[in-house]
Amino acid sequence: MDFASFVTGFVDGEGCFLISFNKRSKLKSGIEVRPSFSISQHKRNKKLVEKIHGFFRCGAMRFSRRDENYKFEVRSIHDLCTRIIPHFKQFPLQGKKQNDFQIFAEICDLIYQSKHLNSKHLRHIITESYRMNESGTRRYKQAELLRILDEMKI
Amino acid sequence: MDFASFVTGFVDGEGCFLISFNKRSKLKSGIEVRPSFSISQHKRNKKLVEKIHGFFRCGAMRFSRRDENYKFEVRSIHDLCTRIIPHFKQFPLQGKKQNDFQIFAEICDLIYQSKHLNSKHLRHIITESYRMNESGTRRYKQAELLRILDEMKI
Repeated sequence: MDFASFVTGFVDGEGCFLISFNKRSKLKSGIEVRPSFSISQHKRNKKLVEKIHGFFRCGAMRFSRRDENYKFEVRSIHDLCTRIIPHFKQFPLQGKKQNDFQIFAEICDLIYQSKHLNSKHLRHIITESYRMNESGTRRYKQAELLRILDEMKI
Repeated sequence: MDFASFVTGFVDGEGCFLISFNKRSKLKSGIEVRPSFSISQHKRNKKLVEKIHGFFRCGAMRFSRRDENYKFEVRSIHDLCTRIIPHFKQFPLQGKKQNDFQIFAEICDLIYQSKHLNSKHLRHIITESYRMNESGTRRYKQAELLRILDEMKI
């Protein structure tokens, strides 16, 4: 049994690679970009979430009373780029989630280089992000974010 | 990357080991016992389901229009006992689903030996099955099945 391959299998079903956006008028670009990798499980599966947390040696676990889920989440761009992304390059996802991952890895790399502070790159980040997580819902429409970007001068 | 370990990881999140029951007045026991192992995925992940189907070399895939899912399912007791169960003994589940699996494997073994045709064993199968799949719903209450069993003479 290879636990690293097991983790990739589990994440292929249950994990989430997400780039989310928030309006932040205090930022020059007007838009905050927030990448995250997460796994949520019902509390009955807490031990497995802890085991995966231990495996990646970064991120944090928290409990949501609303849905009785434990969520393991990594938001630090450093941890994403040095621990999470290298794992999934070495042990690749086998399903549709591989598409999400590839976009996610590319965007994290841009953020790690601070390129999201540049309007051209941020535009690219927004359009690429909206090609991820087909089944999910988003707070803002893509056009709305791009409009904010057009109004800013960065 | 070890695909066998990957499969176990994927199943730990997305797979289902189930023992279901149907009332069958034509059977001596009055109750049909049906074990199954299955994985359901949205059609966008069809290729991965096909890959897992190919890995186990048994069972069948079918499409459900209702939820746009592909389901890979193994119902044959022979295939369950000679292909599915040995895999998860060699590459063990790491989460709560391991409990379900252990009960499932024990019950399949009894069925493979035709012990479910015996009232005492069938009673055991019913009570053990109802300890599986905590989050699921069941057509019949356990007490109802046991009552049917009490009324039959096997």
